[in-house]
Amino acid sequence: MKYPLSFENLINHLKKLPSIGGKSAERLAYHILAMKPEEASEFAQSISTIGSVIHSCKVCNCICEDDLCEICKDLNRDKTLLCVVQSSKDAYVLANVSSFTGYFHVLNGVISIKNGIGPDRLNISSLLERVKQDNVKEVIIATNPNLDGETTALFLAKLLEKQNVSVSRLAYGLPVNGNIDYADEVTLGKALSGRQKI
Amino acid sequence: MKYPLSFENLINHLKKLPSIGGKSAERLAYHILAMKPEEASEFAQSISTIGSVIHSCKVCNCICEDDLCEICKDLNRDKTLLCVVQSSKDAYVLANVSSFTGYFHVLNGVISIKNGIGPDRLNISSLLERVKQDNVKEVIIATNPNLDGETTALFLAKLLEKQNVSVSRLAYGLPVNGNIDYADEVTLGKALSGRQKI
Repeated sequence: MKYPLSFENLINHLKKLPSIGGKSAERLAYHILAMKPEEASEFAQSISTIGSVIHSCKVCNCICEDDLCEICKDLNRDKTLLCVVQSSKDAYVLANVSSFTGYFHVLNGVISIKNGIGPDRLNISSLLERVKQDNVKEVIIATNPNLDGETTALFLAKLLEKQNVSVSRLAYGLPVNGNIDYADEVTLGKALSGRQKI
Repeated sequence: MKYPLSFENLINHLKKLPSIGGKSAERLAYHILAMKPEEASEFAQSISTIGSVIHSCKVCNCICEDDLCEICKDLNRDKTLLCVVQSSKDAYVLANVSSFTGYFHVLNGVISIKNGIGPDRLNISSLLERVKQDNVKEVIIATNPNLDGETTALFLAKLLEKQNVSVSRLAYGLPVNGNIDYADEVTLGKALSGRQKI
C-alpha cells in the first residue's frame, strides 16, 4: 500500500534536503502533519519567501536582507584587512571571533577539479578590484583545510602577490581541547612544523 | 554577527523538526535558500496544505485523503482478521507484507505510564465496537516490542478475551539476515523459547 499522493509528495520534497534519507523524510512528514495549522503555514511562508527576502551583499557577497550586510555596514572595522571565505556560513562563523576586525569576501565556492568548478565561477575579479580600491594590506585566506581549499588558496595567493598584498592562511594545528591521540598524522605533522615559542 | 531575521526565522522553524539540531537546521536553510523559486514554493505549498488534505480513515484511523483508506476500501480482504497497530506508519509498513490479508486498526499511541498516556487517549472503544460489529475472529496485536507496547498488548488482550476473540502477538525472535552474536540476551531467550519445528 502506498501513502496518499499528497503525503508522498511532501516526503519527496523532504527527501531532496541534504542528509535526509527516506526514513527521516517519513518521520519529518508525520511531524509536519501533526503541526497546528498556523505553525505549518508560518513554516511554509518562511520557505516560500526566503529566496526573495535574502540576497547577496553588494560588496562582500554575504547573505543579507538589505543592500549591504551587517559587517559591510560597520564603518569602524579595518578596511585594510580582508578575510576570504568560501561561503556566507563561514563568514558568519568567523565574524563571531572578536579578535578579527577586518571585512570579509565570500567566494561562493572553491576551485574543484573533481567537480569541474573553475576560478571563473567564483567571485575573484570583485576580490581583486576590492583589494586595489580599498588599499588592502593583508588578505587572510580562510578556505577549508582540504585539497580544494588549498588549491584555491594557492591560486589566490599567486594572483594577489602581483598586487603587493601580504597573503596569509589560517594556521593548521591541534583543535583547542582536542586530544593528541585522536589527531591524524598529517595534522600532527603540521602542528609540529608550525610550532610556536612560549 | 547574527543571521538576517528572516533566515534566523527559517532556521528556528527547521530546528523544531525531530532530530534536526542547530547545525543541521543551518545547512537545510542554506539549501532552501539556494532552491529555485518554483521548487521552494511547491515545497511550502505541500507543507501548508498537508494538514487540511490528510485526515483519519473513518473506520481504522489510518491517514488518508478520502473518507476511507485504501485498505478499508478494499472489500476483498478478510474482515474477520484485524491487526492492531500504534501508528499509521506501522499500518503502511505491515500492509506491504503480502501474507497479511486482514484489516488494520490504528490506536494512535500506546499506554505509557512514563508519559502519562492512559487507555482513554487511544482508539480502543472503536476497536471493541468494530470487533463486535464485524464478527472479528482474530486480533493480532502489533504494538512495538518494548515496555509500553507490551503493556498495551496485555491490556487489549484482557478486554478482547471477554468478546471471545482469539488474540495473538507478533513473534519475538531473530531478525532475518541478522547475526546471532549481535542479538541481545533477551531476544535470544525469546527466540529459544519460541523455537519452531522444521
